[in-house]
Amino acid sequence: MSEIELPEADTETQLDEDDRLKPEFVSAVLDAVEAGDTETARALVEPLHPADIADLFELTPREDRAGLAHAVSDLLDGDVFAEMNDYVREDLIDALTPTEVADLASELDTDDAVAIIEDMDEDEQRAVLRALDPDDRAAIEEALSYPEESAGRLMQRELIAVPEHWTVGDAIDYLRGHEELTTDFWEIFVVDPAHKPIGTCQLSWMLRTPRGIAMADVMKREQTLIPVDMDQEEVALRFQKYALISAAVVDNGGRLVGMITVDDIVHIISEEAGEDTLRLAGAGDGDINEPIRLTVRTRMTWLIVNLGTAMIASSIVGLFQGTIATFALLAVLMPIVSGMGGNAGTQTLAVVVRAIATNQLTSSNTRWMVLRELRIAAANGAMLGTLIGIGTFVIFGNRDLSIVIAAAMLINNVTAGLGGVLVPVTLDRMNVDPAVSSAVFVTTLTDTMGFFSFLGLATLWGLHG
Amino acid sequence: MSEIELPEADTETQLDEDDRLKPEFVSAVLDAVEAGDTETARALVEPLHPADIADLFELTPREDRAGLAHAVSDLLDGDVFAEMNDYVREDLIDALTPTEVADLASELDTDDAVAIIEDMDEDEQRAVLRALDPDDRAAIEEALSYPEESAGRLMQRELIAVPEHWTVGDAIDYLRGHEELTTDFWEIFVVDPAHKPIGTCQLSWMLRTPRGIAMADVMKREQTLIPVDMDQEEVALRFQKYALISAAVVDNGGRLVGMITVDDIVHIISEEAGEDTLRLAGAGDGDINEPIRLTVRTRMTWLIVNLGTAMIASSIVGLFQGTIATFALLAVLMPIVSGMGGNAGTQTLAVVVRAIATNQLTSSNTRWMVLRELRIAAANGAMLGTLIGIGTFVIFGNRDLSIVIAAAMLINNVTAGLGGVLVPVTLDRMNVDPAVSSAVFVTTLTDTMGFFSFLGLATLWGLHG
Repeated sequence: MSEIELPEADTETQLDEDDRLKPEFVSAVLDAVEAGDTETARALVEPLHPADIADLFELTPREDRAGLAHAVSDLLDGDVFAEMNDYVREDLIDALTPTEVADLASELDTDDAVAIIEDMDEDEQRAVLRALDPDDRAAIEEALSYPEESAGRLMQRELIAVPEHWTVGDAIDYLRGHEELTTDFWEIFVVDPAHKPIGTCQLSWMLRTPRGIAMADVMKREQTLIPVDMDQEEVALRFQKYALISAAVVDNGGRLVGMITVDDIVHIISEEAGEDTLRLAGAGDGDINEPIRLTVRTRMTWLIVNLGTAMIASSIVGLFQGTIATFALLAVLMPIVSGMGGNAGTQTLAVVVRAIATNQLTSSNTRWMVLRELRIAAANGAMLGTLIGIGTFVIFGNRDLSIVIAAAMLINNVTAGLGGVLVPVTLDRMNVDPAVSSAVFVTTLTDTMGFFSFLGLATLWGLHG
Repeated sequence: MSEIELPEADTETQLDEDDRLKPEFVSAVLDAVEAGDTETARALVEPLHPADIADLFELTPREDRAGLAHAVSDLLDGDVFAEMNDYVREDLIDALTPTEVADLASELDTDDAVAIIEDMDEDEQRAVLRALDPDDRAAIEEALSYPEESAGRLMQRELIAVPEHWTVGDAIDYLRGHEELTTDFWEIFVVDPAHKPIGTCQLSWMLRTPRGIAMADVMKREQTLIPVDMDQEEVALRFQKYALISAAVVDNGGRLVGMITVDDIVHIISEEAGEDTLRLAGAGDGDINEPIRLTVRTRMTWLIVNLGTAMIASSIVGLFQGTIATFALLAVLMPIVSGMGGNAGTQTLAVVVRAIATNQLTSSNTRWMVLRELRIAAANGAMLGTLIGIGTFVIFGNRDLSIVIAAAMLINNVTAGLGGVLVPVTLDRMNVDPAVSSAVFVTTLTDTMGFFSFLGLATLWGLHG
């Protein structure tokens, strides 16, 4: 690539300041494809980074993707597929023959090849595996034998391991002398004769050390090993906590079987952190490329659960129909009490779910957290109660009504604060993902308690219009 | 460190299977501190990784932290502070003299030193800067001159840059011959005489190449450069998109001024992705170590905004007091319509906010996204309307009521779907963070539309008890 074609210069016409493909650029490519002008389409797409080509396919309407793929087929390599959204990729892969898929997979490290193959139907998977050469096939079959979302699926088999008696010079000569070794690695693992990792050596340390020094004296013995069956979320937290660039993956016998690098982890960290937003809202995976049928089903399930809880809350209102019939203003004000409790509960819930997910809230500090949230809820409840009490008195001039709504607001806020901590903490102890199911419980709690405390107090107090 | 002390063996008594400190371990340390048994406390804490020592302080009640810090003061190095939560660190740092802080900072790379110093009061900051030696001081002062949360604050000045005419052998000799160079780097930057980066070379490529080859032939010319004033969220997205391990930071003249490594980015990726959960819920930063006063203020602000919108929604109910007085059952059912709209709106909102944050939703596919969410909302609204309509008919035997509630449910769901896309997309175009303010607008919309459509249709239809 000559200097004139440096991507810094190019990207200005393709990408906006946030590294997103410009709509004009996407349209230009799709117009060329539609006009049958394959040459222009290719020329436009060719300078793009594989991640941007993947984005281009995601931004292309589904019905135009096959045409685009046809026009730029020679640019569609394994790296592009590895970067692509699962659903978009599946669509494109479906149109390829098993041999073509096998060709793509064989260009990639095991982890990326597995990502492409793991979502296929079993029949297609078998056909692709048959088309691979025996080495790649064995590596991918082994990866597929580990549970989904485990370290075994994430890891690549391509890594550099050297015996501890080697010197730095031996290791460098080995790397220079063996064409077939991987070129993408950031650390070298030092292993004992049983192939168990005993140390890790950053490449920078090797480069700064004279050839004659033993690897055992350069490597670091404290290392963070990843068990092959560890869940990817735990792997991500471990990379984050210990600031790892790469890590050795070991089998149950402690033998080195693979390597995970941080570039495969950043996607998971982002996904897992973003998942909580989506799960708390009951939006499933929230993948915008998911077939609409699946999205409707996921969201519907959650909405039906919520319909059930809304009916429970509304049955509480039903208990007080008599009071409401004589004093309709209560119906006007009751959504304020339940809604504000819901807002306060959601605040606490979001904080607690994040604190659990990031390992900041553990059994060591749960009691402290409950007390903290109770104090916050009491303070906010008292302030909100006072505000709404004063407002109600000013607007409606009814002293009794303003006392009742203020008291109900305080009660419901404290309920929200308590529920917002205890529900997710309890679910987490029961090994249920607190992000998925907490919101139902907490909003049911704040709705019912909001209606019950307000309408109940009003009835007890004998309020009437 | 002898083999017997390998952390794999040790950590079992300290960490649970999720790498969290065990409550028994935390108690043991704190009991020793309280009993004045400094030796035991030190012996327990000493084998911990800096990240775990930082966690230990976070899990220790605030009033006991000073005692713990005193007991293990010699283990409290810069790395521990760099890993610590901002608020917990500030507390501890406040108890140190400027010279002690300067000693800690001088052990660290610029980015970590800046993280410790940037949160201090201006007076204290000046005192610490005075206590640093001139080189460190200049580097930190320069970093502080960049905006908060920009690449300039994140980058470290310690990096390896070599001229393009050097061979691989020249570079290795340079690294071996200069003690003072940094040891933590993953790539070498090749620069022109004006110190502008013209290529990046992974260390693995250098190690696999004979000494005589020119660096210019090993390096990759396409490189992702980070402008020094880029926001950290954009930096994180760029690292993620292009799977970077490290990247050169350049000033406005294109000259190499620093380096950002991915281990500093993983925290940001996780924070930024998690922030959306907290912001959508109106929980501010959601930092559980924040002083309670600040937390109450942040959440209160949001709750008062919500109180305002709840009053708007309730004023809609107020318009229909007459209808409710004659038919109190409407008050029982109306929270179902508004609540279900709120749930559906929240689902769409969460999906859209995540899609915007991850650059999946851009102006290229906004129209498609609106149509997609409209279809989902219509499908879900029709199904939920049918369900609630049938349920209402079965329970209350009122055909007109069941038609009205079914129609209102459909109307409110479609409103929720439209609002859930259009509100965040519009805010984003106005450069307002959609995660912060969308929820207020969307729930106000679904509450008011829920009440208005249900009570309005009931009134038009002339429903009565």
